[in-house]
Amino acid sequence: MRALISTAPFAENNTYPLDLLSEAGIEYCLNPYGRKLTENELSELIKDYDFLIAGTEPIKQTALRRASRLKLIARVGIGLDSVDLIRARETDIQVTYTPNAPSPAVAELTLGLMLTLLRSIHLANRDIHDGTWERYFGRRLSRCTVGVIGAGRIGSRVIQHLSGFNCQKVLVNDLIEMNELASSVQCESADKTTIYRNADLITVHVPLTQLTRNMISHKEFRLMKSGAILINTSRGGIVNESALYDVMKGGHLSGAAIDTFLDEPYNGPLKNLERCLLTAHMGSMSDDCRAQMEIEATEEVVRLSRGEKLKQLVPEFEYENQQYMDHE
Amino acid sequence: MRALISTAPFAENNTYPLDLLSEAGIEYCLNPYGRKLTENELSELIKDYDFLIAGTEPIKQTALRRASRLKLIARVGIGLDSVDLIRARETDIQVTYTPNAPSPAVAELTLGLMLTLLRSIHLANRDIHDGTWERYFGRRLSRCTVGVIGAGRIGSRVIQHLSGFNCQKVLVNDLIEMNELASSVQCESADKTTIYRNADLITVHVPLTQLTRNMISHKEFRLMKSGAILINTSRGGIVNESALYDVMKGGHLSGAAIDTFLDEPYNGPLKNLERCLLTAHMGSMSDDCRAQMEIEATEEVVRLSRGEKLKQLVPEFEYENQQYMDHE
Repeated sequence: MRALISTAPFAENNTYPLDLLSEAGIEYCLNPYGRKLTENELSELIKDYDFLIAGTEPIKQTALRRASRLKLIARVGIGLDSVDLIRARETDIQVTYTPNAPSPAVAELTLGLMLTLLRSIHLANRDIHDGTWERYFGRRLSRCTVGVIGAGRIGSRVIQHLSGFNCQKVLVNDLIEMNELASSVQCESADKTTIYRNADLITVHVPLTQLTRNMISHKEFRLMKSGAILINTSRGGIVNESALYDVMKGGHLSGAAIDTFLDEPYNGPLKNLERCLLTAHMGSMSDDCRAQMEIEATEEVVRLSRGEKLKQLVPEFEYENQQYMDHE
Repeated sequence: MRALISTAPFAENNTYPLDLLSEAGIEYCLNPYGRKLTENELSELIKDYDFLIAGTEPIKQTALRRASRLKLIARVGIGLDSVDLIRARETDIQVTYTPNAPSPAVAELTLGLMLTLLRSIHLANRDIHDGTWERYFGRRLSRCTVGVIGAGRIGSRVIQHLSGFNCQKVLVNDLIEMNELASSVQCESADKTTIYRNADLITVHVPLTQLTRNMISHKEFRLMKSGAILINTSRGGIVNESALYDVMKGGHLSGAAIDTFLDEPYNGPLKNLERCLLTAHMGSMSDDCRAQMEIEATEEVVRLSRGEKLKQLVPEFEYENQQYMDHE
């Protein structure tokens, strides 16, 4: 049996996932490009494989049509907007994911992006390395009203990290009741409009669905304070990139930090805005979380190869969500 | 009466301190260079002033000899290594400082530097702005053993911020007993050698005295883990800069963040090391803390001009410390 590992990098700091495959007698092939694949590149590669250990590359109709032997897509990560779940099910391909593993690393990166922007750490560092010395004024996180949109696996950890800073206010928007969360840390429930209007710092931790696509665009930006900061470490497409560019180019917002983009690798106009802090979809890229994700995905492949039950099958509501989106 | 404001910037975002001086009938002159003065530059300026609202520029024998009218040095900040306290006292110049105001901003910057280095935020941002896309692996703060040297005004706040991350261990070295601190947050007392040997992240929050000058040099670096990270937001001179450069050039340490330097503006060899994160003595540079410091220092000047009692005179132990250093 053969596995294609389309996510890259893979097993870079720890070869244990590859050892698991070898021990199970599974041949494997690593992504030959060393970067996120296009759907055509994936389609060229996928034909003779039984298992796909996948990143965020598109796995839609074109690729699935070529995947005549494929039995399992094991996503290394949580987002499923890249996978056509409905078509995969039609051709009896099971899909697993690793929903918990990336959360701690994404939440910590989010705090890092907040503090970097608030104090212009990246700009001062660039200046000194270039031989100039500029002392940037900043703001303190403790004095900010922080708005957290989405308080699931990642958002709730962000709120936990914020608790050590005793922020002015932490406003949280989530679909579910937050009684448990609100009792353990200082935060209060708020609707999105209240957050857009009042927060100094807004951070987004929701999945990409038909409800969240372009959730933050011109209309929402107009509600925000002119000195507000926006952080997106969730998914590209939730914050409308061209609207963000337009408003920031016009002087609105004091900063933004974007880790996820519609097209990756990103090479768009936000890179021309100095006060836009950009990172390379690195939310999950801590050694421990990445290793955990890779191991969990690989274990699913090994399980299926042995006829064992899969542990983290994508739940039914994800299929329903995609079905709904298809009929928009 | 006349005040020289040698610290720069001053009243940049809030003119209230200047209004205080004007209302009290005190003429003032802002630093004409807009940057940290040399002792000679200060000496040229200081002659006709009654009050000095000072930054970290050297106020030693040469300058004080020219300061025939000076009655008060009001330091905007906490460090006193720049002021010759003994000689100031000999010529009846009183010295005040603002020991509490900068702490919250320094502590937050420290957390920002930790998270930036752990996740290479500054490098990813530079890459994307330059048109390349590199996904950096990082480590999580929660999995680190953090060593905090000095748990006074700033160090104790750093420990508080760390509490939201539930670090593996927080080892704290301080002269005083830490019963109160240790009971409120998760940390344990440790000697410096234990910290150097065991910490993944070491952060220094001590004043510059004869005991702390070159406190971290070749010998201490050799004790540290090869992947350790060192943060200095306290004072230049505590971490020996040339030793730091040597060991990092040789591949030791995974990163360092330095905000304070022996000579500022800094333009030394550390700028040639990519994994050295450098900021421009910005610890206190948050709008609220900087305003607080400027107001507190200015209020001392106004008090003296009205014959009122000064509120934050430098305590006797600071004089004793300098006397001891002079007789080394």
